[in-house]
Amino acid sequence: MSKGITSRSEDYSQWYNDLIIKGGLADYSAVRGCMVIKPYGFALWEHMRDQLDLMFKETGHQNAYFPLFVPKSLFEAEEKNAEGFAKECAVVTHYRLKSDPENKGKLIVDPEAKLEEELVVRPTSEAIIWNTYKDWIQSYRDLPILVNQWANVVRWEMRTRLFLRTAEFLWQEGHTAHATEAEAIAEARLMLDVYATFVEEYMAVPVLKGVKSENERFAGAEDTYCIEALMQDGKALQAGTSHFLGQNFARAFDVKFLTKENVQEYVWATSWGVSTRLIGALVMAHSDDEGLILPPRIAPMQVVIVPIYKGDEQKKQLSEKAAAIMQEFKNRGIRAKYDDNDNNRPGWKFAEYELKGVPVRITLGARDLQNGVVEIARRDTKEKESVSIDSVVDHVENLLVSIQQNMFNKAKAFREEYTTKVDTWDDFQKVLDEKTGFILAHWDGTGETEEKIKDLTKATIRCIPYNNEPEEGKCILTGNPSRQRVVFARAY
Amino acid sequence: MSKGITSRSEDYSQWYNDLIIKGGLADYSAVRGCMVIKPYGFALWEHMRDQLDLMFKETGHQNAYFPLFVPKSLFEAEEKNAEGFAKECAVVTHYRLKSDPENKGKLIVDPEAKLEEELVVRPTSEAIIWNTYKDWIQSYRDLPILVNQWANVVRWEMRTRLFLRTAEFLWQEGHTAHATEAEAIAEARLMLDVYATFVEEYMAVPVLKGVKSENERFAGAEDTYCIEALMQDGKALQAGTSHFLGQNFARAFDVKFLTKENVQEYVWATSWGVSTRLIGALVMAHSDDEGLILPPRIAPMQVVIVPIYKGDEQKKQLSEKAAAIMQEFKNRGIRAKYDDNDNNRPGWKFAEYELKGVPVRITLGARDLQNGVVEIARRDTKEKESVSIDSVVDHVENLLVSIQQNMFNKAKAFREEYTTKVDTWDDFQKVLDEKTGFILAHWDGTGETEEKIKDLTKATIRCIPYNNEPEEGKCILTGNPSRQRVVFARAY
Repeated sequence: MSKGITSRSEDYSQWYNDLIIKGGLADYSAVRGCMVIKPYGFALWEHMRDQLDLMFKETGHQNAYFPLFVPKSLFEAEEKNAEGFAKECAVVTHYRLKSDPENKGKLIVDPEAKLEEELVVRPTSEAIIWNTYKDWIQSYRDLPILVNQWANVVRWEMRTRLFLRTAEFLWQEGHTAHATEAEAIAEARLMLDVYATFVEEYMAVPVLKGVKSENERFAGAEDTYCIEALMQDGKALQAGTSHFLGQNFARAFDVKFLTKENVQEYVWATSWGVSTRLIGALVMAHSDDEGLILPPRIAPMQVVIVPIYKGDEQKKQLSEKAAAIMQEFKNRGIRAKYDDNDNNRPGWKFAEYELKGVPVRITLGARDLQNGVVEIARRDTKEKESVSIDSVVDHVENLLVSIQQNMFNKAKAFREEYTTKVDTWDDFQKVLDEKTGFILAHWDGTGETEEKIKDLTKATIRCIPYNNEPEEGKCILTGNPSRQRVVFARAY
Repeated sequence: MSKGITSRSEDYSQWYNDLIIKGGLADYSAVRGCMVIKPYGFALWEHMRDQLDLMFKETGHQNAYFPLFVPKSLFEAEEKNAEGFAKECAVVTHYRLKSDPENKGKLIVDPEAKLEEELVVRPTSEAIIWNTYKDWIQSYRDLPILVNQWANVVRWEMRTRLFLRTAEFLWQEGHTAHATEAEAIAEARLMLDVYATFVEEYMAVPVLKGVKSENERFAGAEDTYCIEALMQDGKALQAGTSHFLGQNFARAFDVKFLTKENVQEYVWATSWGVSTRLIGALVMAHSDDEGLILPPRIAPMQVVIVPIYKGDEQKKQLSEKAAAIMQEFKNRGIRAKYDDNDNNRPGWKFAEYELKGVPVRITLGARDLQNGVVEIARRDTKEKESVSIDSVVDHVENLLVSIQQNMFNKAKAFREEYTTKVDTWDDFQKVLDEKTGFILAHWDGTGETEEKIKDLTKATIRCIPYNNEPEEGKCILTGNPSRQRVVFARAY
């Protein structure tokens, strides 16, 4: 089967799109900038979501649900936040359609059903949620509030890409309220740790943890913590952010609480989110020219068994053997599929499951069965081996662990190879253009310099890493003194 | 603690609102007609959703996600469906806000960012999904498509009520595509059975299964199957619907497939949905004047342990004992909470958990502990008993099963009591006004009569029950011949 996938070296961007579409993860839709998440892609998201949800609950959070719409007057209350998102807001202005008197069977917006106040489709929910928290919080006894929401949000993007940047996307947004600044900062950092753990241990993608420069902060935040991943084309991708919001939203929505000392104070806030964008990171970090490579812990299908037979008698024999193996996989919580669909030949199936990134493929041949062996192929390294049929389940169980670890190690080695210390402006430009990847360089700490570097090279400061080693140096652009290196890259 | 809950006899509607709000399930929001689902209410929804999701997957369905927005031209393609929903559509007309030049810090809709084609916020997703299925379906090999979506939808309602009728609500909508009419009908009926099983076995609410009259059909459907539940005030509530859509959407979106016989045919469709409205049904079917009564299988908290002690030494002793019991609950998958919060007195906690409908309360007293017993109170019957502390977990495990069964039996007995056969128009009106409940009456089968009865009495035909016994009779309104009784009621 010719998969028709563009190679990475030929056109990385087209390769990415081919994988998403031909791998069955998502597709374009009739709505500008919005995608359809197909069953295979959604199953992947479900595994990611369920694991994150578990980790949120283990850290004391509960889910809730707030309205999709934000009245304009609430939306504009926190000015920086409003300014940051105003340019990408979908706005509901009417609440009814009616028959078009001039065009039978067609509908028009009913001009008499104009809303008194326009409704913004949430691009993020701080405003509507803090307006609600005002009613929930009276005293220190009501704090902390540790709430998360799984929801769809809309940000009208001019240039969209499947999963990476779509007008509507799915995400979770945590919104917490605290009595003290220290507690809010600890919460924001805790959730960044949760994200890092998830992305590294489940998605097998290594991340840098750090804090954003002022220019790159979330609109309305005092500090934005982030995890940054490196894609195979040497570009960075922000995989998750957690914001310490100070008292900005409490002030905007007048949310105060009575302290133990009987004083009225503004409440401290955080928010944090990851989205379906993570699927884009997953695809770009691991996959190859043959298709997706999914890490076992979140792969919708961890194992596929493809039988090879001639005639019904052989098929029956293989099916019986496969049923026993499938049952044992199920008992151990391994997600396996037995594909005996006669519409497709084995070779077609091999290519299809390779494209879909299934971590382990078992080929069950009639002749092999007589010899008591099966062939096992792993997707990440493409290695094949012959394994005794009696030990196949044990073998696969261990192999899934190895694949998960190998994928992480490989991605981490790649990141290390593509992380470069640079001390001159010439080298900076050269590494950016030729080698790509993360660049550790000195920066004078000003927004102006950061902006100038971005204008000149399209590189941005991805983060100031946690536990950064102090190091005296000179800013690569201005030569002004600097006390630490920061991480630059071109980014998605 | 005075809960401030209006009694059912005083004002049923206010009682319902009091329970929803004071029980911590949901609250009004700043957006007209939209609610905030609070953590306790959302946890309840999660248990319902997860169980339904499991049942959908067990019947071969997969989840996917389609855009929130439907371009107007797609929305109007299936005319009956469009006509049915046009009057309640929220419409996005612009994609940007900008600073108000006349009002610093305020935003206005940017008139230059007007969409060429308006976007309808989905009131239901047949249009956008069938427009997508057109790309997914070429031949019989692509069928059936068994897809479900968990999503938010918006229907602009003039009169809203928490959970029962809100402008935005959460639901699932299954959308399936089939090669034959028979298969599609079987699917629609299968999913109605799934709904009935869920509502009866998990929510402990008995339902009538049946088919809607033509007047009450979903806009765009050939047949609508439904489950109907009876609330404590004698009004009916439609708890779920499943639609056989014929080839209507396939025709509207030109979705054809190549049959095995090499002929192009239109695809057959179903859709089916239940929503957060089910929570309204749950509350109104079971609760009492003291608060919510939640069935154990979906209660967020199945058991609460309230310690009674004086001083730290007693508290420590009780905590140790409670920890052992809590661990055993956890091992058995029983959701329990130990509430040793010193901010509230035991009496306050008793009232609070009663209000929240926690099925079982265990009172762990210092003196009881010495005697080796605890007090167990069940929420449904309010019975209390003293139980040996060594057998408390076994006891509670059995008790949860009994409570689930008792709640269903009680609701079923109520429905039987409030189901009345009526043969004259006078009796019909009298039963409707005085006794209320389901009324089994003869109807001449015409939409005109149905409409007239509705105008005169506000009663509607809830369904024509499955396996209805044929019975010759005369229509209660017109006296025209009828071959079966149908189910009338006033409804939510």
